[in-house]
Amino acid sequence: MAYTATGSVDTVAIVGSGTIGASWAAWFLARGYQVRVTDTMAGRDAFVQHYIETAWPALTRLNIPGESELATALKRLSFHGILEDAVVGAQFVQENASEKLETKQSLLAQIDAALPADRIIASSTSGFGATALSQAMAHPQRLVIGHPFNPPHLIPLVEVVGGDNSDPAAVEWALDFYRQAGKHPILIRKEVPGHLANRLQAALWREAVHLVVDGVASVDDVDAAIAYGPGLRWAVMGPHLTFHLGGGEGGMRHFVDHLGPAVESWWSSLGSPHLTPDVKETLVAGVAQATNGRSLQDLAAERDRRLLDLLEALQSSRKPLSQ
Amino acid sequence: MAYTATGSVDTVAIVGSGTIGASWAAWFLARGYQVRVTDTMAGRDAFVQHYIETAWPALTRLNIPGESELATALKRLSFHGILEDAVVGAQFVQENASEKLETKQSLLAQIDAALPADRIIASSTSGFGATALSQAMAHPQRLVIGHPFNPPHLIPLVEVVGGDNSDPAAVEWALDFYRQAGKHPILIRKEVPGHLANRLQAALWREAVHLVVDGVASVDDVDAAIAYGPGLRWAVMGPHLTFHLGGGEGGMRHFVDHLGPAVESWWSSLGSPHLTPDVKETLVAGVAQATNGRSLQDLAAERDRRLLDLLEALQSSRKPLSQ
Repeated sequence: MAYTATGSVDTVAIVGSGTIGASWAAWFLARGYQVRVTDTMAGRDAFVQHYIETAWPALTRLNIPGESELATALKRLSFHGILEDAVVGAQFVQENASEKLETKQSLLAQIDAALPADRIIASSTSGFGATALSQAMAHPQRLVIGHPFNPPHLIPLVEVVGGDNSDPAAVEWALDFYRQAGKHPILIRKEVPGHLANRLQAALWREAVHLVVDGVASVDDVDAAIAYGPGLRWAVMGPHLTFHLGGGEGGMRHFVDHLGPAVESWWSSLGSPHLTPDVKETLVAGVAQATNGRSLQDLAAERDRRLLDLLEALQSSRKPLSQ
Repeated sequence: MAYTATGSVDTVAIVGSGTIGASWAAWFLARGYQVRVTDTMAGRDAFVQHYIETAWPALTRLNIPGESELATALKRLSFHGILEDAVVGAQFVQENASEKLETKQSLLAQIDAALPADRIIASSTSGFGATALSQAMAHPQRLVIGHPFNPPHLIPLVEVVGGDNSDPAAVEWALDFYRQAGKHPILIRKEVPGHLANRLQAALWREAVHLVVDGVASVDDVDAAIAYGPGLRWAVMGPHLTFHLGGGEGGMRHFVDHLGPAVESWWSSLGSPHLTPDVKETLVAGVAQATNGRSLQDLAAERDRRLLDLLEALQSSRKPLSQ
């Protein structure tokens, strides 16, 4: 199957328009695409429009190529109560329904039936693989996972992974398309629970929970250990390059040979907590203490402001370290 | 024992002046302190001076309070071949000798003997606890760990932890002093291998190694999964607050109740690799592929440039999220 050329995509369909779908819509709109949104839930058109209006100043500030005038951009946005209407004419579909297997399977089959077979469908799912999601599709080979990080209009990462039935060319197509659309896609070569970045997050958090529950440090201090320490370095490069440059003249080889034994000894002492009711209470209480009465809205606004400052700062200097 | 008031510290002794000691010297100098450096290795005075000269533009750009003129600041720097000469007159000592237990024990005993007992000694050690390090000291109660993150003149985190013999007031003193000196200290309540942030790094890297070795993704893509994804969020807040804001209206309680089961299922599938010779080769080869011939110097320069951009961007908006 020859797929539509990635460079000729001008229309994207967004199926399911909660927070993730709305954020994808804002991104694609800012990048100059026609965006056709569909959702079965009433009122989602107002929600998406409001989301895009709120996100627009950030997208403008980050100089996303494409249209900078919101009013002009919004002319490229349309809402459709009927899924088939949204999908018709789209060269790419991003599915963002709620994380229920049957819901997604049935929606994907419906998209599959309405969309010409030379077009790729990507699912934003964080919890399922393409093998399971494509069960009811007539053309399962063109389904891939394209898992973004919240919020997709700000965080560049998209995890691309196929399933047992995915066409390798469909996976390549998605990687190429997301790259052209200005994201930073990575290739996950086989299905694993949680994809990749969430597994790394979960691994770090498991030890964080262990240290809190074991009384080693407060939630606030564990969080500060990341945000004022390695988190700052991880925003500029990943863990391997960090260690490569932490290994002195010998780079990664020196690191694994000379610091490896220390790391292995830490590995052997990492904890394996479980989220029992008591552990949950400890974490909830720790967060309450750390946030000291500040509302979620207030904290989220501060997070978004800082994230935008950071993205803007990194943008000028950011190019893949490997190039 | 009543310790010297943290606010009255005007002179800091730096014992051991490799990369960490030199970076501490740059920081304390930029913050306006008298800095007395001692090292038994010949030529370290030139190394430290060169390190400070190289670091100074970054410190000036970050508007570290204190002196901005390098020539004026350097008048507050002195080198001493004899440890006792450096320590005399200092109200605080930061020890940064190489990571050998006997070397550090003997140095700390020597510092202890030369320094009035009302003054705190902190060790930059990443690998030892105060209990072990203080074995040869006459006043073990005033030794604490003050573990910085490389480079200390840029990364705010300092991990403070006492040992079995540490005076709780000495631990409090160190937290207070580092805070006044412009760092972000955290309290680790008991000795654990690797302190805290390195354990979190090790936990994340263990799963990263697992995914690379298991063929799930390349070193380059695993690194990108952090640097273009959660690493960006971790530079603005730690893992618990990230999840608190990822839990929707219900915050952390919603997160642990509704997303906890998924996280626990990922925990149960995390890998436990070992750094066997084959694994080391895989990692070294993966880094070689990811860096594509770029030199360590080139990569380090890019990392430092990006890190500085990021720190500058966060500085205006950065205040502890919990306040």
